[in-house]
Amino acid sequence: MNDQLIVNLGDRSYPIFIGENLLQKPSCFDPYISASQIVIVTNETVAPLYLHKLMATLKHYQPETIVLADGEQYKTLETANQVYTRLLQLKANRTITLIALGGGVIGDITGFVAATYQRGVNFIQVPTTLLSQVDSSVGGKTGVNHSLGKNMIGAFYQPKCVVADISTLKTLEPRQFSSGLAEVIKYGLIRDYSFSQWLQDHMQKLLDLDAPSLMTAVRRSCENKAAVVADDEKEKGQRALLNLGHTFGHAIETATHYKSWLHGEAIAAGMFMAARLSCDLGWINEADVKWAENQLLAANLPVRPPQNITTEKFLALMSVDKKVLDNKLRLVLLKALGSAVVTDSFGMPVLEKLLDSIERISEKEWVR
Amino acid sequence: MNDQLIVNLGDRSYPIFIGENLLQKPSCFDPYISASQIVIVTNETVAPLYLHKLMATLKHYQPETIVLADGEQYKTLETANQVYTRLLQLKANRTITLIALGGGVIGDITGFVAATYQRGVNFIQVPTTLLSQVDSSVGGKTGVNHSLGKNMIGAFYQPKCVVADISTLKTLEPRQFSSGLAEVIKYGLIRDYSFSQWLQDHMQKLLDLDAPSLMTAVRRSCENKAAVVADDEKEKGQRALLNLGHTFGHAIETATHYKSWLHGEAIAAGMFMAARLSCDLGWINEADVKWAENQLLAANLPVRPPQNITTEKFLALMSVDKKVLDNKLRLVLLKALGSAVVTDSFGMPVLEKLLDSIERISEKEWVR
Repeated sequence: MNDQLIVNLGDRSYPIFIGENLLQKPSCFDPYISASQIVIVTNETVAPLYLHKLMATLKHYQPETIVLADGEQYKTLETANQVYTRLLQLKANRTITLIALGGGVIGDITGFVAATYQRGVNFIQVPTTLLSQVDSSVGGKTGVNHSLGKNMIGAFYQPKCVVADISTLKTLEPRQFSSGLAEVIKYGLIRDYSFSQWLQDHMQKLLDLDAPSLMTAVRRSCENKAAVVADDEKEKGQRALLNLGHTFGHAIETATHYKSWLHGEAIAAGMFMAARLSCDLGWINEADVKWAENQLLAANLPVRPPQNITTEKFLALMSVDKKVLDNKLRLVLLKALGSAVVTDSFGMPVLEKLLDSIERISEKEWVR
Repeated sequence: MNDQLIVNLGDRSYPIFIGENLLQKPSCFDPYISASQIVIVTNETVAPLYLHKLMATLKHYQPETIVLADGEQYKTLETANQVYTRLLQLKANRTITLIALGGGVIGDITGFVAATYQRGVNFIQVPTTLLSQVDSSVGGKTGVNHSLGKNMIGAFYQPKCVVADISTLKTLEPRQFSSGLAEVIKYGLIRDYSFSQWLQDHMQKLLDLDAPSLMTAVRRSCENKAAVVADDEKEKGQRALLNLGHTFGHAIETATHYKSWLHGEAIAAGMFMAARLSCDLGWINEADVKWAENQLLAANLPVRPPQNITTEKFLALMSVDKKVLDNKLRLVLLKALGSAVVTDSFGMPVLEKLLDSIERISEKEWVR
């Protein structure tokens, strides 16, 4: 069972394949490999689980492999340089195809290396986490972190195709799976109310890894993201809508040093806060807030920020957001369920009141 | 006195300004700076000569400056990382404009940082050497070297504008100036016979830094390169014509460790060798070879390779050229003066015979 959608970006358009056991399907790969030399980039966690399957599918190319350490802390220029070095040692030329097998970190590093090795080579993304299947596989954001900032070095660079094999989600830790669900829920809230309704009815099936439900969730998420990205590839405007909950969420991630809270957990709390603020402004009603809250809770996600972040700390951390323009903080807020806006017209006192009043939770309360 | 031409690349088109004292002209900069924050990147050699002039012109932006060490050996990922760090310390956001003030190395590093800082920011190139004015200011090639290969890390990324101030050529060392003339001569040989004829009559004026002659040479060079690049921005085909003499030349540069021979000197010898080979194949005649040779000599350039490179070494070094496809060496050769082709149909025995027979020179013979 499999499905396909096209991300429309003119001559940089590419297909996303979604289905079961796609790692074993040569037809998802062969048409997108331009020459015989391929290198698979993966990490120590994913390699023992899935590398042999992909190697078997691509064995006639005699793939080389690069296995990196696992973790956001390795998403650095130094790691990218390790990959360049290996590629040069392998005498890889411009016709090479890089294949990223792993989650968002592997996709981001490999995409960045593909964008910059000999001024750009082909790459294919094989996301193996729910988060990377619904988020980083669409949009062409590639890059690495700098010690002074996350994702500060990078490029917009599109893959030749994306292979989202939902079978790889079976080995994902439940917390990681829920973290991906946060982004899935987001698409419903920002621009697709009927998807939000569908999620209301299918959350348990998703948690049970029901294949048809997973395929629907991944496809609708990618469709929503692709529609936004097609209108605004380089993030000049509307693409910021995808950041619902992210300004609050990034503050949480920074305050907790990207350690105790996963990305999806931080933005889950952030999305609840954005919904709460939208309600305080009179844009949505209490039932709408409850809708968002219940959906996040059903996905086993936290809906309150952690204890250690004071109002002052939140405001300080939020002021460095990339959406800040002319020193004015802008937030993604809800005008209705399924309809978000990027705005600076919420009034700082309303935001401060929210940050003062919102309950904080301890780690124990949300790690179930 | 100044002139302007447009490099046509669709929505990435940009103007090149060519003239005297352009560093002092705000109109060459102001329309291309999108926000108030600018950072000038330059090096220790250029800074004392020209930084104060550019700073004065742009003083209302209160420019920050980054002064790098001078030399190809600093064109590395480490140096790029130094620039990222400074930009982050300065809290530079995506609306920043980077200005590259210097030769090819500064342009390449700054362009690469512009391509990759926060996934791409604006940059302006202010080339201060003849080589960078006629070559690297057109085409969008940016990048840094890796210890295993030159220009192996990079991106195609276009500037917002290029400001070629010919007044900066007054402080250029004569050898560096001649090195730039090699690329000027190249444009005549590969696709512009009338320019080649003009050069025949104006070489002494160029060496005397006659302003109108310099402006013509820079403009016609940029026009020729822009026409080739507009047809083939990402170097899939015809752009390789710009590499006349470069396969031989890169072998010379590698064999001499990029030290004793300047780039233009190496490709001057390489262009003579390509002309000689074209004649051996019966494609051009002895008078044509002499035409190329005399023009290079008039520009104070070497026309024979250095002593220490045997035929075997040449062949080994040439085999790693980026133009090698399916293990077949391809060369840019002349079908006539002003008409070059990229071809693999020269026959290895003819090439070997040329490499065996061509005279070698000592460093003393060409450093005049």
